[in-house]
Amino acid sequence: MNNPTIAIIGSGALGGYYGARLAQHGHDVHFLLRSDYQAVHSNGWKIRSCDGDFVVPPESVHAHDRPETMPAADLIVITLKATSNDQFRSLITPILKPDSIILTLQNGLGNEELLASHFGEQRVIGGLAFTCINRTGPGEIHHSDHSLIRIGEFRGPPTNRLRVIAEMFRTSKVPCDVLESLRFGRWEKLIWNVPFNGLGAAMDLTTDRLIATSAGRDLITKLMREVIAIAAAEGIHFSDEIITRKIEQTRSMGTYYTSMQIDRRVGRAMEIDAIVRQPLQLARKMEVSTPLLNVLDGLLSVW
Amino acid sequence: MNNPTIAIIGSGALGGYYGARLAQHGHDVHFLLRSDYQAVHSNGWKIRSCDGDFVVPPESVHAHDRPETMPAADLIVITLKATSNDQFRSLITPILKPDSIILTLQNGLGNEELLASHFGEQRVIGGLAFTCINRTGPGEIHHSDHSLIRIGEFRGPPTNRLRVIAEMFRTSKVPCDVLESLRFGRWEKLIWNVPFNGLGAAMDLTTDRLIATSAGRDLITKLMREVIAIAAAEGIHFSDEIITRKIEQTRSMGTYYTSMQIDRRVGRAMEIDAIVRQPLQLARKMEVSTPLLNVLDGLLSVW
Repeated sequence: MNNPTIAIIGSGALGGYYGARLAQHGHDVHFLLRSDYQAVHSNGWKIRSCDGDFVVPPESVHAHDRPETMPAADLIVITLKATSNDQFRSLITPILKPDSIILTLQNGLGNEELLASHFGEQRVIGGLAFTCINRTGPGEIHHSDHSLIRIGEFRGPPTNRLRVIAEMFRTSKVPCDVLESLRFGRWEKLIWNVPFNGLGAAMDLTTDRLIATSAGRDLITKLMREVIAIAAAEGIHFSDEIITRKIEQTRSMGTYYTSMQIDRRVGRAMEIDAIVRQPLQLARKMEVSTPLLNVLDGLLSVW
Repeated sequence: MNNPTIAIIGSGALGGYYGARLAQHGHDVHFLLRSDYQAVHSNGWKIRSCDGDFVVPPESVHAHDRPETMPAADLIVITLKATSNDQFRSLITPILKPDSIILTLQNGLGNEELLASHFGEQRVIGGLAFTCINRTGPGEIHHSDHSLIRIGEFRGPPTNRLRVIAEMFRTSKVPCDVLESLRFGRWEKLIWNVPFNGLGAAMDLTTDRLIATSAGRDLITKLMREVIAIAAAEGIHFSDEIITRKIEQTRSMGTYYTSMQIDRRVGRAMEIDAIVRQPLQLARKMEVSTPLLNVLDGLLSVW
């Protein structure tokens, strides 16, 4: 991949930030936008970042409002909400070429599988984004903390292409690790996401409220144990010690609104399927008992 | 009870309205007030009611800010929130005489038992209020719908004193029924209150949202079944048909905020103990399986 053509599919806050960093560092980045198309097309990206504010001027931004106007891409970065995964075919097919690599930075489980089923598993790379990025207006993004990405092959051990992509992010001011096991990384993130996104959205409570009482910590702990049990049935093992560690980390985050709680509050679709139901489906397939996760799914199904 | 002295303990919206109706019809009513004391003492009660607006002028209102200034009462009506039940002794003892009757119109289970344990069970009468009454300002109440009270002896069948009290309410423009079995009435109300107050508060959802989806109706139905099972273990039997009927009634209520959801929203103590934990304690004592009620208790314990 020398001078690759990069497509960012779903340029909300996450896609906008990472794409803008790549564009800032001279890469050829094409953004597929919906609501922000006019603003970005006319004014480029305005980024307020804890790692330094910057602007990507309109002449360096390739903004598109449909995939048909985009060039075929070497690297297709998926930052859609997982609630839009039914659009994979229509959004990705027009920009696909035989050796396009598809990197999904989406939340939860099931995204790589679906991409692989549509476009072939050899193309698919998965990534986890650990960051606090919000859209503050049309074409305006606020990056307030962290920006680490961890990427891994969907099938098999790390490859050279993985290292090349990681290096590309790193030289664009985005810390990027290579994961030995993407699946391990996904489950580690789910251990946090299932209870905090799930309960946070179902109860409309921030993370600090969820861990402020022993009853809340008890619920969080039980849900984490159930997620750990599903992962174990998949052959991925975590010790219980991770629970204490994750709760301690959460304490240091203060009053934090998870993405699903924010989606609930503004009336947007929540990533219930990717974060709660995909793990639950695996639990059922592998006959892992998850009584609390069942109830959580029931609560979230009210939406 | 000719010309009885009536004490209203806990004169929020409920106590204010019923007490004002009794005062309006010539009864000698003494109100124990906290935040509204000054307003009621100076200006009386201003009631906007679907059954006709009225004012109880200050000269007809006996407002008190502590029980020590109140006369001993023939009838003590308890309209405190059940979250203040630890104040029974200090609030009621000063106005008690040998034949005082205590009528609690509070929500949930356990109120009669606690009053009986403090003051003797022969005094205790229980009542259920079916009404929509809100406080709109100091000394100001809006009664928007219904006002039915159903009263029953705590122990044993209906008595003459019960009929006298019912008649006193009825001649004061408050519909009042005599219950053959208070316990039956309490459980019937709990079948609705446990799921709608419980889930409504835990999830911050109005009743219409809770029954809008099949997933929501499924949760409500399961919780109602668990409450019905606890009642059955107590010898009080309901058929499953009541579930459909209660859900249909809820549909006719439109967008309704339960008292516990309102308490959550304004940051007041919620009646979790009386509405959720007392039934749950009975379930545990009688070894009735209530898996969903257990989780609901866990969720509400986060507060």
